[in-house]
Amino acid sequence: MASVPDLDPTVSSRLRFDDAGLVAAVVQQHDSHEVLMLGWMDVEAVRRTLTEGRVTFWSRSRQEYWRKGDTSGHAQYVRSVAVDCDGDALLVQVHQVGAACHTGDRTCFDAGDLDVVVGDVPA
Amino acid sequence: MASVPDLDPTVSSRLRFDDAGLVAAVVQQHDSHEVLMLGWMDVEAVRRTLTEGRVTFWSRSRQEYWRKGDTSGHAQYVRSVAVDCDGDALLVQVHQVGAACHTGDRTCFDAGDLDVVVGDVPA
Repeated sequence: MASVPDLDPTVSSRLRFDDAGLVAAVVQQHDSHEVLMLGWMDVEAVRRTLTEGRVTFWSRSRQEYWRKGDTSGHAQYVRSVAVDCDGDALLVQVHQVGAACHTGDRTCFDAGDLDVVVGDVPA
Repeated sequence: MASVPDLDPTVSSRLRFDDAGLVAAVVQQHDSHEVLMLGWMDVEAVRRTLTEGRVTFWSRSRQEYWRKGDTSGHAQYVRSVAVDCDGDALLVQVHQVGAACHTGDRTCFDAGDLDVVVGDVPA
């Protein structure tokens, strides 16, 4: 059996995986800055995303890896990946081909805003 | 004891809280579109965020509510809140006063990018 390469220790030492072994990954279109979706990555999904040029997630519902676009063609090509201050979230800048959302919407947040009280910024 | 108002059922029916009772909240500056941080909200933090004009999170490490800016003055004033397609993530557009990160950085993702293989978009 071929061994799976480990994630670079200088990277994994910066990450803080939760009890399920996951970090949250915010995916943003690199030029328009639209937030496209939020997904989840375990250590192997992070390794693939950093090294393969395409974004790989861990599906919490299906308990399997999935690479955005393999079914739909709507691939996410990696531009950069930043870690947040406490290591439990990634910001992945991508070039998104087509729709990011499985519904066909450009982003997964296009389904409609909630009613909010808009905050009044003090002068 | 004063009763705590419930979250509007038309809102809560759209949300899918995880086993810890939380949804992820991506916070984005409304005009520059910078992704400022990622936090966590339980049902009450969502209710406060939607109704109080300021962003409230649930701290997983301290197990308590915290309202961004109460200590630092770096408040987040709510502009809009969108739910994602499967209801487990929110995109909160805000006006951020000062630094979003407790480190003093403008965003929590400013600490430095990881090395990546940039994806080659097919022609």
